Order: sequence, then structure tokens, then C-alpha cells
Amino acid sequence: MSRNILIFGAGKSTSYLLDYFIEKSGPEALQLTIADLHIDRIPPSIGNHSSVTLHKLDITDAESRKRAISGADIVVSMLPASLHHLVARDCLELKKNLVTASYVSKEMEAMKEEVKKSGLIFMNEIGLDPGIDHMSAMQIINEIRAKGGKMLLFESFTGGLVAPESDTNQWNYKFTWNPRNVVVAGQGGAAKFIQEGTYKYIPYHKLFRRTEFMEIPGYGTFEAYANRDSLNYREAYGLQDALTLYRGTMRRVGFSKAWNMFVQLGMTDDSYTVENSENMSYREFTNLFLPYSPTDSVELKLRHYLKIDQDDIMWTKLVELDIFNPKKIIGLKNASPAQMLQRILEDQWTLAEEDKDMIVMYHKFGYQVEGKKKQIDANMVVLGENRTHTAMAKTVGLPVAMATLLILNKKVTTPGVQIPIREEVYEPILKELQSYGVEFREYEVPYLGYNPDSVAG
Amino acid sequence: MSRNILIFGAGKSTSYLLDYFIEKSGPEALQLTIADLHIDRIPPSIGNHSSVTLHKLDITDAESRKRAISGADIVVSMLPASLHHLVARDCLELKKNLVTASYVSKEMEAMKEEVKKSGLIFMNEIGLDPGIDHMSAMQIINEIRAKGGKMLLFESFTGGLVAPESDTNQWNYKFTWNPRNVVVAGQGGAAKFIQEGTYKYIPYHKLFRRTEFMEIPGYGTFEAYANRDSLNYREAYGLQDALTLYRGTMRRVGFSKAWNMFVQLGMTDDSYTVENSENMSYREFTNLFLPYSPTDSVELKLRHYLKIDQDDIMWTKLVELDIFNPKKIIGLKNASPAQMLQRILEDQWTLAEEDKDMIVMYHKFGYQVEGKKKQIDANMVVLGENRTHTAMAKTVGLPVAMATLLILNKKVTTPGVQIPIREEVYEPILKELQSYGVEFREYEVPYLGYNPDSVAG
Repeated sequence: MSRNILIFGAGKSTSYLLDYFIEKSGPEALQLTIADLHIDRIPPSIGNHSSVTLHKLDITDAESRKRAISGADIVVSMLPASLHHLVARDCLELKKNLVTASYVSKEMEAMKEEVKKSGLIFMNEIGLDPGIDHMSAMQIINEIRAKGGKMLLFESFTGGLVAPESDTNQWNYKFTWNPRNVVVAGQGGAAKFIQEGTYKYIPYHKLFRRTEFMEIPGYGTFEAYANRDSLNYREAYGLQDALTLYRGTMRRVGFSKAWNMFVQLGMTDDSYTVENSENMSYREFTNLFLPYSPTDSVELKLRHYLKIDQDDIMWTKLVELDIFNPKKIIGLKNASPAQMLQRILEDQWTLAEEDKDMIVMYHKFGYQVEGKKKQIDANMVVLGENRTHTAMAKTVGLPVAMATLLILNKKVTTPGVQIPIREEVYEPILKELQSYGVEFREYEVPYLGYNPDSVAG
Repeated sequence: MSRNILIFGAGKSTSYLLDYFIEKSGPEALQLTIADLHIDRIPPSIGNHSSVTLHKLDITDAESRKRAISGADIVVSMLPASLHHLVARDCLELKKNLVTASYVSKEMEAMKEEVKKSGLIFMNEIGLDPGIDHMSAMQIINEIRAKGGKMLLFESFTGGLVAPESDTNQWNYKFTWNPRNVVVAGQGGAAKFIQEGTYKYIPYHKLFRRTEFMEIPGYGTFEAYANRDSLNYREAYGLQDALTLYRGTMRRVGFSKAWNMFVQLGMTDDSYTVENSENMSYREFTNLFLPYSPTDSVELKLRHYLKIDQDDIMWTKLVELDIFNPKKIIGLKNASPAQMLQRILEDQWTLAEEDKDMIVMYHKFGYQVEGKKKQIDANMVVLGENRTHTAMAKTVGLPVAMATLLILNKKVTTPGVQIPIREEVYEPILKELQSYGVEFREYEVPYLGYNPDSVAG
């Protein structure tokens, strides 16, 4: 007897997820229903497959939504995070298990008791970050604990970057995911973490100047800036006693220092709109943030303001983005500086048809065992195949798909609203991911504690 | 027949206001009712005066409030700004005129039509800033217009500082008003203004590095950083066509550059609370914002982070505040960095018993008349007498009191929710203020437009 998987949302991050389900549809007797408002955008290779049914559906139409869910054996939501709770509410009512790659929202959290009581599984945060980061970290942390080790330090970094072969600009960066998230990254409050038992806070305007470096053999050096709250999973991971907890976002070395120029100028501000943004040139936009002068050029004012020389690589990076061009027009109505900057960056940082993306992840685990301090570093690199089959779609989609099948096959059985930090979830998924080239390399390294020599600024 | 003035709130800013009313109580046949929750704090010299009645009143008690208002001929609210609307609502219902020194709130603005229809006067923003700034600016702007001049430039700056004789610290600053407002000044969005027809935006973390200088003969040089919105009174003043509009806050030269250190560190952040703030030492507080190091001192880390030398005046200013002291404890529960910093600053910046404060105001008016560009600069300096009779209380309280009497005597008659920008209000008040030593000195200066040579950074 075949099992019905209902998938809400077939956006660009679902290529690998759908491929996986189709590949398993024969051996696992799966029927797939893809519910989306834009079913015409689903490629024929998927839409025409015998096990697939396309269902044009407006997610806000409660009746259609419930009808679709009632016919499913399990539900996968790849919708924008803010819409999951609609699906979750119905899944609870209709007693269906649910899988999403998004953060546990307040609404989801509020269903905790009911979900558990109903014996249902609502698996969240099982994409890349959050997702693979949880699973790979918990696997190693639990191995360390099994040897009698006590965790002292946990640092974790993820980056969505461009593959080396497509790395063609001065910033070593292109948008491989939502550009808006990149432009406003780090805003909304000071970054908070713990180093050697001491709380540390970095205000937004210093965030990109307090970076940490890390090396991935074969891929060179990366840097990371701190995420807003490194302490979010302290309890979930059982790291209440660890002396150092730090989570960050990875970039190629030099990106953050250059990005900081935009922060200093005020170009990443998303809290107000600019008068006449639509008709403004790139040059006029840049001049908004510089002192008035009847004589000096925008170029000289900017160099003076940011204290950079004309032969500085910082300057070359700005010139590459063409921010002094008086002819290119922003063309966005009532836009914030952040939206205007995003428009300028998209000229240079949009992936070309032939470009490939790259996902990097780096963990550090410091621990004490039999009186000795030790450290394990682990890293993962995943390269995209093309603009549809990106490393991002792979690392987000495959864990979701694998978890769905594990729940369907009753290999994962613990009920509740949850994230993938238990062995019954992460062991089979991390194992299966290896066969898709998604795997970590682990190294024993000397324990340095939090090493200030690898910290810039 | 005597007239009853009801005054809500008898805080420390009301010394001159009450003195003025008492002085006028005989000749003007005034009876004063002072309504306050803490009538015991009112000095006997006022409370025991024959024309004064003290009324212990909880402002949130609607019945008592209305009863008090119904017996008054005019109402003055010196309450915190957020409470004015309670009084204003009742004044509207009971048909009483109202005077406040605070900004026109949304609630006040919403009563506009009703107030006008009822023929009532709700006079707001008639203190110092807002207040004397409106009146003095409009007087000169209207004089320029009367000569056929067209306004090109308007800049306006105010500062609450310490008098030269009491100026005893490295920062040339003490708290003469609400310390909290000083610590969080400039937060909540980019500063916005117009220079020579071009909009300009300064993000918070650059605000204190883009200062403008000004000279007051006999008092030396001052600097000013931009207020958040210099365009607020553009329409009210009729300055829609002016090329330059800039409003700012005055400090002694060097204050802003030094204050910027706190901004850069993140110490002025008021958006989150710090773990264990209560038991933290000043040194530990400082270290929260610096990178971890197993060996380097907090002092060295700070100097390196902010790139300051040990013989830099910036360093001397920090040392004076004792922010590296490991023994002094903050002692504030669940405090934000801004609250903790305020506590540290209050050690050094609180006015001593014998200290005197100083109010400075500086306007620039650029205009064109008969084809020629001209400029008038005007400045005002007011010194406090002691800790009760401060320059702040004088410049806030006297205009409020004078406006009250003008309305009571039907010298000001135009109804509506308003600010003091009309001649019938500002002429008599500015004239009377002169007899109290509150007056402007005007200078014709060469028109420079917006002069970048007087701008730092």
C-alpha cells in the first residue's frame, strides 16, 4: 500500500528534496502531492512523474488546506517560515506528522503539549542551519560524552558562499540565498556570546570588525562574524557548563572588513525610507551618507570619511560595485538604504547561469577527559551542481526528505515538537547524507581554549 | 476678583515658574493651586505663601483631577510628557485653557479640531527647547521676511551644560537634566537633515564624529552633533524652500569625540539587559565589550580596540571616570548597558551643591535680500544661580509662566492646539524674558552657506 507525502511549497530550495522523494517513490511506495500556488513553475521532469500529483493551492484557503492534509500520511512544509503555523494547526487537528526546515516559532512552541499528547512528531530545524549543524554537533558532543569527556568549548560556523570556480569578484561573494538577509545580517541588537566563562557583547557597528579565522584544508582560510545569539541552544545541547559558546557566519577573508564600510556609512539601515529613492543615482545614494561639500568629490569625501587610501583593496572593492556611477538609477520607490544597497549589490553579486554555490560549516569542540584538555575540529564543504541543484538546496532539502521517510517508516518515533538533536534522528540521517557527498571531516587539534591569536581586531 | 491657576506637578524644573507666579500674585490677583503627589517636597517659602494652596493629588485619579480642573481659570501641566493627555482631555471637557512645555503628542494633536471649535488655547512646547528656540527663531525669521528677505539656511543648536566656574572635569560636562536622555541621545534611527538642498543621513555610530563648531564671544568654542530629525519644524516655520536645515545639541569641544568611545564599545545600548549586572564591577562592565584574552589587561585591550594612545586625552577622560575599577560595583538589577554606564557617569557628573549650570543656544539664519546673501547669527547664554534655581528651570519655567498669564489676560487669544510661533505669543514673552537676563545677542556675519570648514570629521 503506498503512502502519501504532502509537500507544501515547491520553491527553489526543493530540487533535491523532490528528486529524493521521486527516487524513493518506487522502493518505498510513495505518492507525492505537491501543493503550491504556482504549480506551473514545477519542472515537467517532476510534475509528469507517475508518483507525483500537482495541487494548485492557496495556503490561506483553510478548507482546501485541510482537505489536502486529511489525505496525507505525513506533511512537509517548505513554505516561508511565517506560514508554517497554519499547516501545523491543521496537522494537529487532523493528527498528521509534520516536517519543516525552519526555526521553532512561538506558535509552534505553543503547540508543544498538545502535539506530545497526540503522539505526533513535528520535526523542525532539519535543514542546513538550523539542521545539519544541530545533527553534526550533537553526534560529536555525544561521542565525547560517551568517552567520559566534559565539554568546555563549542563554536559553530556556517556560510553560504560561491564555489571557488565561480568566485570571480573582489568580495569573494555572491548571493546564493535571500539577498535581503545578507544586507541586514546582524541588525536588531548586540551579538552575545560567552568566551572562557565571560559574557561578551558586540554592537552591530563593530560586528564585522571582530571576526575569527578558520582554515579548511583544500579550501583555504575563512573568517566568521558572530551571530546575534550564540546561547540559543545552550540548554538543548546540554552545554550549560561550557566556558565558550560562539556561533557565527562564514565568509571569505576580507569580506567583513569591506562590508563594515557599508555599516559605517549607514547604508545597511533598514529602519527608514529615503526621499526620492526611485530616481536617485548610485552616486547620489552614496553621497547621502557623506558630509556636504561645495567642492570635494563624492570619491574623496568617502575615502576621507572611511580613512582609506586610493590603492587600498577596500577602495577597489567599492569601485567594483560601481557605487559612484551618476547614471545608474536605483529605481525603487520609498526604499530604505538597505533595499537600495541590495539593488546595487545585485548588479554584481547575482549568480550567473553557470555559477555554482558552496556551503561551508565548521565546528570546534573543546573538552576535558581524564584530566586532559582536547579539541576536535570538524568541517564540511558541499559544492552546488548548477543554479537549480545548489549546495544550499541539497543541504536544506535532503535532511528534510530523509527525516520525513524515517518518520513515515517509524524509525523515528519520539513524539513532540522537536529539533534533530537525538540520536535516533541524527545517526541515520548523517549516515545517509554521506552517500550524497554531504559529510564532515574531523581532526584532533591541540586544545587552545578560546584562542585570541585567531581573532582579528 | 482673583484668578485661579492650577499647576500639575511641582518637580525641580518649577522653581522659577512658581516664583514668577507668586511674584505676580499680588498685582495680577492670582490664586495658585499646586497639585502634586509629593506636596511635602514643596519648600515652605512657596507652600506657606498666602496665595498658594497645596493639593495632594494622584494624577491617575480621574475624579480628583476633574474636580481640581473645574475650579481653575487656567491649567499648567509640568507633569512628565506622557501624562499631559489625561489633563488635556479633562481641560477640553471642562473648557479650560492649558499650557505645557512638552512636545505636541499624538494624543494632543488628535484633539486639534475639538480644541479649536471650543475656542480653547492649548499652548505646548513653550519651555526652552522646545520653546525659546521656536520663539527666538520665528522672531528673527519674521524680521528677515519683513525686510523682503528669503530664507536660505536655518541652523539651531541648544545645550544644557555646566557653568564655566563649575566646569571641573575632563569632559567639560555634568548632568544638569535627565541623565538617561543624555546617555541614549541620538538612538532610534539615523539623523536626517538638509545641506544645500541635499538630504543627509548620519547613522547613530557616526553621529558623534560629524560635529559642527560654533563660537560664543566670552564663552569660547562649542560643538554640536545633529538631532534625529532637523526637518520637524520645516512647515511650521515656513522653511520648505530653505536649502539647509540643521538642528543639533551643543557640547564643549571634545565631548562628542570622547562620547563616541562609549558608542563604539556598545556601552550606550539600551535594547538588552546584561546578565548579573547587579554584582558586576565597573571593570567587568568595561570588559563585556572587549575581546577575550587570557593575558592582556582590560586597559590594553580597550586602547587597542579604540586605537588610542596612553597619552591621548581620550584615555585621560576614560581614566577619570574610573571605568577600570575592579572594586566599584554597579549594583543595578537587570540593567541595560546604557543604565550601567549612566550609573558610572553619575559618580563624576552629578552637580555638586555649589555647582551652577548653563544653557547655551545658537541660531544661524542665512537669507537673500535684494540679490545679496546675508547671515545673522544669534546666541543666548543663561547661567544658573544654584542647584534649585538652575538655568534649565529658568528657561523652561519662565516662558510657561509668562504664556499662562498672557492667556489669562487675553493678550494671546488665537484658539487651538499650538506652539509659540506666532508674534502675539513670542513678542511679549521674549521682551519680558530680557528683564530676567534671558536674551539673545545678534550678529551680522558673512553668508557662508553651509560651511564645511566649520565641520569636523
